[in-house]
Amino acid sequence: MELDVIFTAREVESALVEGKNAVVIDVLRATSTMITALVNGCRAIIPVIKPEDGLELLQERLNAGEREAEYLLCGERGGLIIPGYDFGNSPLEYTPQKIKSKTLIFCTTNGTLAINKSLSAKRLMLGALINGRAVAAELRRYAEPAVIVCAGTEGSFTLEDTLAAGLIIAELQAAKQELELTDRAIAALALYRHYEEDLAQIVYSSKHAKRLASLGFSADLAYCARKNLFDQVPFLREGKISLF
Amino acid sequence: MELDVIFTAREVESALVEGKNAVVIDVLRATSTMITALVNGCRAIIPVIKPEDGLELLQERLNAGEREAEYLLCGERGGLIIPGYDFGNSPLEYTPQKIKSKTLIFCTTNGTLAINKSLSAKRLMLGALINGRAVAAELRRYAEPAVIVCAGTEGSFTLEDTLAAGLIIAELQAAKQELELTDRAIAALALYRHYEEDLAQIVYSSKHAKRLASLGFSADLAYCARKNLFDQVPFLREGKISLF
Repeated sequence: MELDVIFTAREVESALVEGKNAVVIDVLRATSTMITALVNGCRAIIPVIKPEDGLELLQERLNAGEREAEYLLCGERGGLIIPGYDFGNSPLEYTPQKIKSKTLIFCTTNGTLAINKSLSAKRLMLGALINGRAVAAELRRYAEPAVIVCAGTEGSFTLEDTLAAGLIIAELQAAKQELELTDRAIAALALYRHYEEDLAQIVYSSKHAKRLASLGFSADLAYCARKNLFDQVPFLREGKISLF
Repeated sequence: MELDVIFTAREVESALVEGKNAVVIDVLRATSTMITALVNGCRAIIPVIKPEDGLELLQERLNAGEREAEYLLCGERGGLIIPGYDFGNSPLEYTPQKIKSKTLIFCTTNGTLAINKSLSAKRLMLGALINGRAVAAELRRYAEPAVIVCAGTEGSFTLEDTLAAGLIIAELQAAKQELELTDRAIAALALYRHYEEDLAQIVYSSKHAKRLASLGFSADLAYCARKNLFDQVPFLREGKISLF
């Protein structure tokens, strides 16, 4: 299986993604949060790029006769909840009781951008440390050329996303998948191998993690740094992310 | 010391380089070759971007009354010697006998582009695996914010350049230099640490190395994968690269 890793949403070009199975990763915190929300029972997630897009989309749905109680507006700007929105971007907010059967309209800075830039993929799934092994199993199931798209933070490389890419590759290796890795994929795997005994240490040392810690989100970091908590892999289909 | 690593010439922006000490790295093969040529006694190297720039520059010098015997036209396109040039981009070509006291006009695809994009640096030096420890010593001498600019290959991340960046950081650590590393610098160091017992293995596995091997340059790979052969660090000053 040919496998590439792209380090930032900014570097995504159609030629790198088109026709491949793509895994979008934003460990801190968009994809960790979306995976958690879906595992905890939300019906689906609709990613949007800008805060106003979310408000407009909700209004459209209400105008079409849907019930407001079925929707939640979720997301962040600068790490904090968007004014007028129901929830921020902390995975710990998304408990089953609050979100069961709801559709989440979700806006995050880096994660939804990475999703949007990867739409030419054959299949688009969401990955993070918390479901790395499950993502590897999905990639093995199809055994087609794949690309792992790290969201990065504001156009820059981030340790935690690349670490999750490395975890997925390590899980593929552990499952004896034959792999043809690009230079970037080999580097992501080396990052993971070097730190695999202490993922939290390296996640905490990232610039983005330090910023989130300064905003009071240390509990999120500990959660997002855990690996293989879940067996579920969300897929994007027709504009919606869901487990089915 | 603040230390950043940029993975490709394409990603170099003035804001990332300006006012810092910059180390440009193109292990396969531009900086490995330039370092070797200077250690072996050439007087200076003038980097140019395009093959025709080299020919024009030589003509200008001759028109100004300089002797043709003082110059050599050197460089590659697609890994091979440029038509009309004297030497290609193999470090093993640049023996003392052939180049002593000559000025080399040097054109390479990725290396000279990376140099050109880093001109706003406070100081610009050339690094590779073969002089990694010496580069670390220069950076320590100034103890100012620094950036290691990996040339990459045609806009893409390459293992061997990032590995050399990691070697320089490891040598700074070994010298007890206090360091403030960006996420990219931490990842480069992890790549080096993971492979430090067998640098050749990882250099050979890069896409660019495989291409060079297919062109018959395997001996270059073995040479460029050796670390800390030389104590010299070339600097760019007023358009010329030299050891002094």
